[in-house]
Amino acid sequence: MQTHFEQELGELKNRLLTMSSHAETAVTNAVKALVDRDDQLAQKVDQDDEILDQLEMEIDEMAIQLLSKAPLASDLRLIAVAMKVSQNLERVGDEATKISRRARDLNQEPQLKAWVDIPNMAKIALDMLKSALDSFVHRDPDRARTIIPRDKEVDSLNKQLHRELASFMVENPNTISRCLHLMVISKSLERIADHATNVAEEVVYLCEARDIRHGG
Amino acid sequence: MQTHFEQELGELKNRLLTMSSHAETAVTNAVKALVDRDDQLAQKVDQDDEILDQLEMEIDEMAIQLLSKAPLASDLRLIAVAMKVSQNLERVGDEATKISRRARDLNQEPQLKAWVDIPNMAKIALDMLKSALDSFVHRDPDRARTIIPRDKEVDSLNKQLHRELASFMVENPNTISRCLHLMVISKSLERIADHATNVAEEVVYLCEARDIRHGG
Repeated sequence: MQTHFEQELGELKNRLLTMSSHAETAVTNAVKALVDRDDQLAQKVDQDDEILDQLEMEIDEMAIQLLSKAPLASDLRLIAVAMKVSQNLERVGDEATKISRRARDLNQEPQLKAWVDIPNMAKIALDMLKSALDSFVHRDPDRARTIIPRDKEVDSLNKQLHRELASFMVENPNTISRCLHLMVISKSLERIADHATNVAEEVVYLCEARDIRHGG
Repeated sequence: MQTHFEQELGELKNRLLTMSSHAETAVTNAVKALVDRDDQLAQKVDQDDEILDQLEMEIDEMAIQLLSKAPLASDLRLIAVAMKVSQNLERVGDEATKISRRARDLNQEPQLKAWVDIPNMAKIALDMLKSALDSFVHRDPDRARTIIPRDKEVDSLNKQLHRELASFMVENPNTISRCLHLMVISKSLERIADHATNVAEEVVYLCEARDIRHGG
């Protein structure tokens, strides 16, 4: 039979899963709003960010309550990690909001180029985020470890797109404002991959009590 | 007489103060390296970032150990807040590193314009960071509250500089690469102010058990 503490811990994990599903939807919708030039969807992403903010505060409060009741060191670690995961998900939401705002700016101008890089980066970043949360739920450090190297992939796509946009700007100053918006969006996607990587590192720490951040 | 737990808590706070002093130095040196065109100083900022990474991991480890021994709910809150403060300081270090790298790029080209906005933003962001840490040490929520509105000041300086640089780019495409570096630096300073604001919000939460993030 589950103890009261275990039930509460289960509740905390469920709340995190709700949060991660909201964060994924936010990123998916933000990129869809951009590609489909859908202002309304972009606005929805912006408005829905409040839900993630709220969930973050709720999870923090539950976690602090639970810390005082945790019987085992491994529970303390789990709760501390849950707080960090929630913070990362809240920031993913912030990046989605940023993307949706830039999408609305871009929708006022003609499309600069075919959508290839941005949807591609978004796909990888979202895959990383989903895998990181799965590895948390299933306490699977091996799966978490496979996520970490993919961060470099997104970094390099971001740098490549950045260089391409910089040369567009030089060749045609009319594109400068659009290129700047796209650079911000690309950077946001790169940060979402960073957050997924942070979560994966926390999962390894949780499962192996080993801190692998900062190349450790 | 101090209990063993109180001694350890004192040690945790000292470690945080060491960390905050390193973070402030990193920002100061990064901006100095930029203004003085000092590649060596910029390189030092980049190398020293490892110290902050190390301190963050040490503080997390101490905090998790302490959580299992904390007798009071207020101690748990303090320890949870200490972990968040440390994470913010580590990110301040990351922004300082980013500034120092862009400084080295900029040092290879002629100076674009007189140094006014960037040192001004850096001064405000550093003031905010110092005040936030002071308010943490002295558990002074009133002081912490004075920091939060200054974030908007830095946001608006960042936006203003961003607009100015965007028009430079349009007028003279030769300046594009320098303007992009300066935009990244300006954004980094804006983020440092965000981190100071996060710390201030945590201090209010710690002292008043009231979550004022997200306009709460």
